[in-house]
Amino acid sequence: MSTWANAKKAVPNAKELESLFDRLWPICRSLTGEGFRRSLQILSETMPLEKVEVPTGTPVLDWTVPREWNISEAYLEDESGRRWVDFAENNLHVLNYSVPTDQWLNRSELDSHLYSLPEMPDAIPYVTSYYAERWGFCLSEKQRLSLPKTGKFHAVIRSELKSGSLTYGHLLLPATVPTDQEILISTYLCHPSMANNELSGPMVAQAIYQGLKSVQDRRYNYRFVVIPETIGAITYLAKYGEHLKKNCRAGLVVTCVGDGRATHYKRSRRGNALIDQVAEFVLSRDPSIREQLRVMPFFPTGSDERQYCSPGFDLPVGSITRSMYGKYPEYHTSLDNKDFVDFFEMKHSAELYLDVLEGFELNQKYLNLAPHGEPMLSKRNLYNTLGANRVSPQLQQMIAYLLAYSDGDHSVLDIAKMANMDLAEFREPIRLLTQAALLKEI
Amino acid sequence: MSTWANAKKAVPNAKELESLFDRLWPICRSLTGEGFRRSLQILSETMPLEKVEVPTGTPVLDWTVPREWNISEAYLEDESGRRWVDFAENNLHVLNYSVPTDQWLNRSELDSHLYSLPEMPDAIPYVTSYYAERWGFCLSEKQRLSLPKTGKFHAVIRSELKSGSLTYGHLLLPATVPTDQEILISTYLCHPSMANNELSGPMVAQAIYQGLKSVQDRRYNYRFVVIPETIGAITYLAKYGEHLKKNCRAGLVVTCVGDGRATHYKRSRRGNALIDQVAEFVLSRDPSIREQLRVMPFFPTGSDERQYCSPGFDLPVGSITRSMYGKYPEYHTSLDNKDFVDFFEMKHSAELYLDVLEGFELNQKYLNLAPHGEPMLSKRNLYNTLGANRVSPQLQQMIAYLLAYSDGDHSVLDIAKMANMDLAEFREPIRLLTQAALLKEI
Amino acid sequence: MSTWANAKKAVPNAKELESLFDRLWPICRSLTGEGFRRSLQILSETMPLEKVEVPTGTPVLDWTVPREWNISEAYLEDESGRRWVDFAENNLHVLNYSVPTDQWLNRSELDSHLYSLPEMPDAIPYVTSYYAERWGFCLSEKQRLSLPKTGKFHAVIRSELKSGSLTYGHLLLPATVPTDQEILISTYLCHPSMANNELSGPMVAQAIYQGLKSVQDRRYNYRFVVIPETIGAITYLAKYGEHLKKNCRAGLVVTCVGDGRATHYKRSRRGNALIDQVAEFVLSRDPSIREQLRVMPFFPTGSDERQYCSPGFDLPVGSITRSMYGKYPEYHTSLDNKDFVDFFEMKHSAELYLDVLEGFELNQKYLNLAPHGEPMLSKRNLYNTLGANRVSPQLQQMIAYLLAYSDGDHSVLDIAKMANMDLAEFREPIRLLTQAALLKEI
Repeated sequence: MSTWANAKKAVPNAKELESLFDRLWPICRSLTGEGFRRSLQILSETMPLEKVEVPTGTPVLDWTVPREWNISEAYLEDESGRRWVDFAENNLHVLNYSVPTDQWLNRSELDSHLYSLPEMPDAIPYVTSYYAERWGFCLSEKQRLSLPKTGKFHAVIRSELKSGSLTYGHLLLPATVPTDQEILISTYLCHPSMANNELSGPMVAQAIYQGLKSVQDRRYNYRFVVIPETIGAITYLAKYGEHLKKNCRAGLVVTCVGDGRATHYKRSRRGNALIDQVAEFVLSRDPSIREQLRVMPFFPTGSDERQYCSPGFDLPVGSITRSMYGKYPEYHTSLDNKDFVDFFEMKHSAELYLDVLEGFELNQKYLNLAPHGEPMLSKRNLYNTLGANRVSPQLQQMIAYLLAYSDGDHSVLDIAKMANMDLAEFREPIRLLTQAALLKEI
Repeated sequence: MSTWANAKKAVPNAKELESLFDRLWPICRSLTGEGFRRSLQILSETMPLEKVEVPTGTPVLDWTVPREWNISEAYLEDESGRRWVDFAENNLHVLNYSVPTDQWLNRSELDSHLYSLPEMPDAIPYVTSYYAERWGFCLSEKQRLSLPKTGKFHAVIRSELKSGSLTYGHLLLPATVPTDQEILISTYLCHPSMANNELSGPMVAQAIYQGLKSVQDRRYNYRFVVIPETIGAITYLAKYGEHLKKNCRAGLVVTCVGDGRATHYKRSRRGNALIDQVAEFVLSRDPSIREQLRVMPFFPTGSDERQYCSPGFDLPVGSITRSMYGKYPEYHTSLDNKDFVDFFEMKHSAELYLDVLEGFELNQKYLNLAPHGEPMLSKRNLYNTLGANRVSPQLQQMIAYLLAYSDGDHSVLDIAKMANMDLAEFREPIRLLTQAALLKEI
Repeated sequence: MSTWANAKKAVPNAKELESLFDRLWPICRSLTGEGFRRSLQILSETMPLEKVEVPTGTPVLDWTVPREWNISEAYLEDESGRRWVDFAENNLHVLNYSVPTDQWLNRSELDSHLYSLPEMPDAIPYVTSYYAERWGFCLSEKQRLSLPKTGKFHAVIRSELKSGSLTYGHLLLPATVPTDQEILISTYLCHPSMANNELSGPMVAQAIYQGLKSVQDRRYNYRFVVIPETIGAITYLAKYGEHLKKNCRAGLVVTCVGDGRATHYKRSRRGNALIDQVAEFVLSRDPSIREQLRVMPFFPTGSDERQYCSPGFDLPVGSITRSMYGKYPEYHTSLDNKDFVDFFEMKHSAELYLDVLEGFELNQKYLNLAPHGEPMLSKRNLYNTLGANRVSPQLQQMIAYLLAYSDGDHSVLDIAKMANMDLAEFREPIRLLTQAALLKEI
């Protein structure tokens, strides 16, 4: 009997997710540095991630691992010592990867170092400058307008860019029966205090891990990867790209999974990879989200699927998101905060992933071993004679479809589509037919 | 010149069909036994069926030929000798394949042997128990409610289950020019007194035979098969399955063709076999039924196409029905009777089959023998110069389409679709172009 | 840098087109003869057409070059010498290819030689009898009704059918870098005084030539062919058919391009040739015509695409038309005149052709030379770091799409469709990426 029924029960509940969130939230993360390391350590408490350090300057594909960034303090004060902007209040206040500075400027000199959003006067924008040396402060438009027009400002950023390393975490949850085949679950952890994008990503990835761990009949190895976005995926692919090209059967990038306002499936670059077909089928039949579901073709902006799907690797990696990056106004601002997310929906997101993964596991091909005519089912107790309700009409129907189409060409997904039934329902008739020696997995 | 124009003229008219119906109606048929034999004998008067007996116990594919069932009398009477249910009144009253019985029971003992339909209080249901030994009576819900609540009932079923044989009939109507290629027309004859399902099936099959017999230019051998449903198809495939796999180019299961309320085409398992393409095209252009036409994908419940299309044989067998099994409330009850069917529509059903078969015969591929530029048609009297109306505009159009697309890839069906014209219309331009040595059949 | 921007600037303006029209209009053209020659000579002033004479009687594919037809005078007068119909007034008045005649007839004898359109009483129809010897007069229904009912008529046609030749013109505008690959632009010049069909065809072909000539980076040789319809295409294919089969990558038949009421794209027989895909994409995105655009499958009536697309050659030749032959009431009558056409729209038609041809040239396949992960664009100045607006968001987007899909399978057209952007916009990002050694043409 399958143990997949356990998967969802093992997903942390909303309360547990909230308390994990509260610990991760205040940390100032970036591509590299102590913020990332500390966050990864917290995640490691519930998933046995191996932590890897890749030295600054290491060539990774077409890129180079950048210097490590750390920051202790940053503020902007006027001559009276009044602090107008303070990193201690919100770590979005500093342009991420700012070089250190300590100088006095007048307002017009200062202005070219300030980032705000006139169209969202209450929001502090999230701005980065990883590959061009800059310093700056991000603040709400309201704050900016309230700054004194005259006088000098003291800009202090106690940051450090030094030769160090890029950190990532990964683990391999093995299949029940040894196999080379893998499913990749990738998420990133480089954003400072924002909730949907991105704390929801690693949190849900961790919840998926809890679910999968509780399953004892996994067909695939599950590779969990927690990286900084883009450079982390490139660094990971530099080492594991060829391995994944050979072994990765499917992958999903977990990001923007913190709310319940929307659900998207973004296809892999291939467009019709098995994971695409399964995810679209499973999600489109899920009554809890099917009306809001939007399936999107691959587009080469987005998250780490850009790297996994790049034509040199072309991995079958898609992404299930809820309110998607770039598609909600609070994205990449201080308004993407705890109020924006919903911990029940975060749990729900993990369940959606588990449903798709279970569907992917179930979607094998079988061969009807008695393919000439219909096999006589009643002599195998697989057919209801009058009044004996051993076999439900629905089960009878699935048995008929499995026998009719298990010809080596059609997968369980193909059959489920024709029968207009959920993929997961086929677990039982497959078991019965296999046991009766009428079906054999190919 | 083609003789297909004769086909429809040779179809029996409504009166002839009605008198055949009246002879077949009262007979109590089942999978095996005298009822089947007598019905087959009546059909044989107008189609030269070879009658074959297959002994009980013969292994057929995954099945075994069952014992032969015959019945002479059955009734249910109370202590006063009043008969409440009597097989003599309607042969549906006995659970088909009932074992013999002669016993006194009280009402509650009796109840587990009674079958009725609470939701259709006037209908006697058709119920069978071929492969599990039972006895029972079928009656209308009204009858059941009127039965005395107390007292004893005398249940008498004078039936016999004995080693005997399963009977079927078949014939081969040969092609004009010898060929191995066949078209299968299959119908079944195992139901007791019901009209649309099933007397219409063998009756229309017989009418199709009359039509085809009158055609002298048949490209294919036509194999007519009259069997008991399921076990008959399995028995037939056990012997002829490999032969059909090699030679059968198309097949149709004739069932539920007795009324004019609906028209369905159920595709073969392949879904896009030539017969599927032709049937859908021809039927969808027929003004008499195109508005009611419903094309259905293959589904593994239904009739004998389940056996013919099973993956081990995978024959290109579809089915044209009118009110389809399971899709009309009277199905499998005593209300599927003479009032339900319409003999003009039964004739019409035979004509629909003949149109599809003619279309299938016409749907060959040709090669344009003057493919470089358009051939000069006027020098061959195939083009109208001013005022000479030898060639109608429609014929001109078909000639142009045939020349443009007879490239070895496109069939006449493909061309008819592009030209938006009936398949049958292409007979004449094909003849003219072949005669002018501009077209050659591939 | 591309010089395609020059193409449209070099298209003659409406005034220039009008004055060319005024010179061509009065000439009585036919399949052969001096009218065709004189018209071809006028076209040759702006495009260096080689003029070729093919002798009467030359076998061409399934046809034979017909006798040459010339005409000097034709009229119909009554006994009083009053001219009721006069070729000098409108060259449509003579049945094209009429044999000479000079005879007196009564009205009923005359009637079988008269052609008019009862349903369009003011229009003189255009009627021909190339391959059956006839003489006749075409006149408006009003004229016909005004003819005297009694008395004799003098029918005079001073025409000549003699052994001579069929004339055509062609030229090859070479690609920038020598290549065998060609694009065919074909138009016909055999109709007497009608404006949309056909003077617009050769006039727009000439305008396209002006445009292409001004481009210095052409990938393909452009073959311009000016022929009499049907027999001209057959004659041309008799000589160049095999050459075109080998080298012709795309072709367009230029006809019915004189007005702005409609725009059609008629697909090649193949249906999805590259030129079909490009033309449909480019035209459907052009705001000036996309709402009126109608894409039509190939049909084997029409113009010279019938010959080019015949299955023996099967060239990828489509046709962009405006008000299409057979689809406007004035077609093939004297009402298809200068009032019907619009010289601004004729220029517009040339521009539409040039846009499609530019799109076809751009639609190559490229290979991403750094396909493992995304290449680091900022180190190549192809990525905006904060505030540096070197690269527009649209350009950034196209760069991302080109890198993601330049895998050897996808063409620029495929990528433009996915990115939902114009094909022509991709010229610049392709140039930038090629220059950065990130992209290589396959």
